[in-house]
Amino acid sequence: MKSSSICIGLLGCGNVGAALVQLLTEQHESVKRRTGLDLSIEAIAVKDLDKDRSIPLPDEVFTTDSASIVNNPEIDLIIEVMGNIEPARELILQALNLGKSVVTANKELLAAHGAELYSAAENSGVDLLFEAAVAGGIPIVRPLRESLAGEPITQIRGIINGTTNFILSRMSQDGVSFDEALKEAQELGFAELDSTYDVEGYDAGAKVAIIATLAFGVEVTSQDVQHEGISKITVEDIKFANQLGHCIKLLAVAEQKVNENGSSEVGARVYPALVPLSHPLAAVNGSFNAVFVEGDAVGELMFYGPGAGGRPTASAVFGDVIDAAGNLQRSHGALIGALDKPNMIPPENLESPFYLNLKVEDQPGVLAQVAEVFGDHGVSIQSMEQEGMGSEARLIFITHSSREKDLFSTINSLNSLSVVSSVDSVLRVIGD
Amino acid sequence: MKSSSICIGLLGCGNVGAALVQLLTEQHESVKRRTGLDLSIEAIAVKDLDKDRSIPLPDEVFTTDSASIVNNPEIDLIIEVMGNIEPARELILQALNLGKSVVTANKELLAAHGAELYSAAENSGVDLLFEAAVAGGIPIVRPLRESLAGEPITQIRGIINGTTNFILSRMSQDGVSFDEALKEAQELGFAELDSTYDVEGYDAGAKVAIIATLAFGVEVTSQDVQHEGISKITVEDIKFANQLGHCIKLLAVAEQKVNENGSSEVGARVYPALVPLSHPLAAVNGSFNAVFVEGDAVGELMFYGPGAGGRPTASAVFGDVIDAAGNLQRSHGALIGALDKPNMIPPENLESPFYLNLKVEDQPGVLAQVAEVFGDHGVSIQSMEQEGMGSEARLIFITHSSREKDLFSTINSLNSLSVVSSVDSVLRVIGD
Repeated sequence: MKSSSICIGLLGCGNVGAALVQLLTEQHESVKRRTGLDLSIEAIAVKDLDKDRSIPLPDEVFTTDSASIVNNPEIDLIIEVMGNIEPARELILQALNLGKSVVTANKELLAAHGAELYSAAENSGVDLLFEAAVAGGIPIVRPLRESLAGEPITQIRGIINGTTNFILSRMSQDGVSFDEALKEAQELGFAELDSTYDVEGYDAGAKVAIIATLAFGVEVTSQDVQHEGISKITVEDIKFANQLGHCIKLLAVAEQKVNENGSSEVGARVYPALVPLSHPLAAVNGSFNAVFVEGDAVGELMFYGPGAGGRPTASAVFGDVIDAAGNLQRSHGALIGALDKPNMIPPENLESPFYLNLKVEDQPGVLAQVAEVFGDHGVSIQSMEQEGMGSEARLIFITHSSREKDLFSTINSLNSLSVVSSVDSVLRVIGD
Repeated sequence: MKSSSICIGLLGCGNVGAALVQLLTEQHESVKRRTGLDLSIEAIAVKDLDKDRSIPLPDEVFTTDSASIVNNPEIDLIIEVMGNIEPARELILQALNLGKSVVTANKELLAAHGAELYSAAENSGVDLLFEAAVAGGIPIVRPLRESLAGEPITQIRGIINGTTNFILSRMSQDGVSFDEALKEAQELGFAELDSTYDVEGYDAGAKVAIIATLAFGVEVTSQDVQHEGISKITVEDIKFANQLGHCIKLLAVAEQKVNENGSSEVGARVYPALVPLSHPLAAVNGSFNAVFVEGDAVGELMFYGPGAGGRPTASAVFGDVIDAAGNLQRSHGALIGALDKPNMIPPENLESPFYLNLKVEDQPGVLAQVAEVFGDHGVSIQSMEQEGMGSEARLIFITHSSREKDLFSTINSLNSLSVVSSVDSVLRVIGD
């Protein structure tokens, strides 16, 4: 096979960048044999030249001048793993405008400015690939862009934040509290000291914006995504969920519906939900991620694997690099078009079953009063269990699928009943 | 977006072909909007022009002359869903040689003659795509070819035959016998009347040949695959496996190892195995399929979904059609190279833990005699349970990882012990 030299510039050399250099070095001969591509890293942009990175490349490869790499006419392909929005955005735009292909793992950037970057790539007829930006090592971007390009996808549910899944798994399997589990995640290096970005669903939100954009072919940004985190989930919630045959997971959900006027609407949200133990997502534990796709033609698909980590993420970047390098050999461009803004589904019209946990007075007739409130708002009850006695009496409900609007007015009315002390938990439940 | 017309010729119009025509019609506008591709089916080759297919296309689209479609200069892209080796092989080769891209769902053909076809596609600089040939609607071919192109894959284990998985699930969940479950699968249309191809592992074997070829970049054909089917699995085996925390699945396994001489070896086999209930593959039930990939960099990935069925398979074909049509717009070729023959791992050197079910005399000292035989052959025991009494006494073993050679000489020696009535089941066990 004829061999083609492809010169690579790497922007950023943290965990992922260093793992990528190692993988490129280890697999250089195997890739050359199988694809004819002779990949070499010509330059690496770093913040600090003096840091020891244990990378088997000569010192002159490193520079602090990112722009010089992008502008170097000998470099064919740019890999961006520096993170944050600027200067990554400007550097990538410049590279695309110069006709270089770009591989990036930058979810924040794509979730905020994806459409601008996809257009720039299309106009220049080069690749902008970003498998590693969603769910780390799991191939989900390429299947959505290519394999499912013709599939009428209706809904995607993902467990796409490893930190929160680790915390919920620890709470569920070992009964430790949220605070303890978070502390442990921080000690193990899974969670940042400022855990808000993970715990409150912003990280999953950036990823689901990218997923919704790919799945539905419209521009969804981080700002379009509604967030609800897991910091209020208690061990008791998880215990009750278990008694009802469910676990609790932080889900990122992208969905598309046809509204009453016949036009198409897209939803993108992050929230903790009860998942039936028989559902494939229920078995996704610890720092693993999974993306569950439902389509009219294909039915149900799930993609499962490591959602983070240097080497798994580097593996996803590497696949993109080989793809883009192969396309440079053959002058091929990106398969993503100009993007329209979607109509967003009004959240109050979304429907799902709900789990409710009510603290109530332990006296005759309470259930009748509570059930009447549900009925008045058109919310029907699928199952009910009474827990505890006296001042600890609780009613645990799972409703049939209900509009959020109706559910929230139900809760308002429940709160004004004298026999209800408090409505302690309200969580969505996904079907089997 | 500028729109490009792509004229398609369809060879075969059974379940998958008819579902594909329907999907192409339903999604025509959506695909045109998102990709600029205006896809139209110009001609369909069928065996019988008079059969009613409920397809919304004029009669003159249908023909019995497949070659006329392939040779029609107005047709850009050929979809082959007719099955069997000839004339599919000749028609596809002719199409590729004429510079047309080809999408096929034909596993038998690719498992027998893949290398010849991949070369023809590469020589002509066109696409030969075949996502639907392995695991129906699950995107696994594209992730292996592209996303994991740089990943050092060590092992792939798949549940990739829906019929056998349905039978094993029924036996496990409802305690029905193999024969009853098979009959039910036939009545439901999951299994052919001649079930040998599914039940004895030939179908999974063709698919794992394709998987091994993609994963390891070497030519593995159906004939290189070793088969063991599920017709001897009993409900008791499944019950005992369950007591030990396992289920039984028919696995297709592709693996790559470095042997003592430092050269790389590939294995491709199909066999029933005990799978720990905690393993993601254990939850793959009924007619679902899943492919579990292990790589040095990425760790563990799983792809799960419908392994068969008209619409799911048509969805996979459709994704390939959009990909190939997009590439025709941009003159792009296939990313698969010339293929060498692998060194196959000698089966007797393969290692795994094993499950053994022995019928024994119920008398003192039996366990000591049996255990001594294991020890003599270097096979160490991980767990043992005694079941039943008197003439029904059994010993159930799970061994630590052992070479097949040692395990089979252990069985020979056990068979010659007077206290062992019979060695009734020997099954591989995969790790957690």
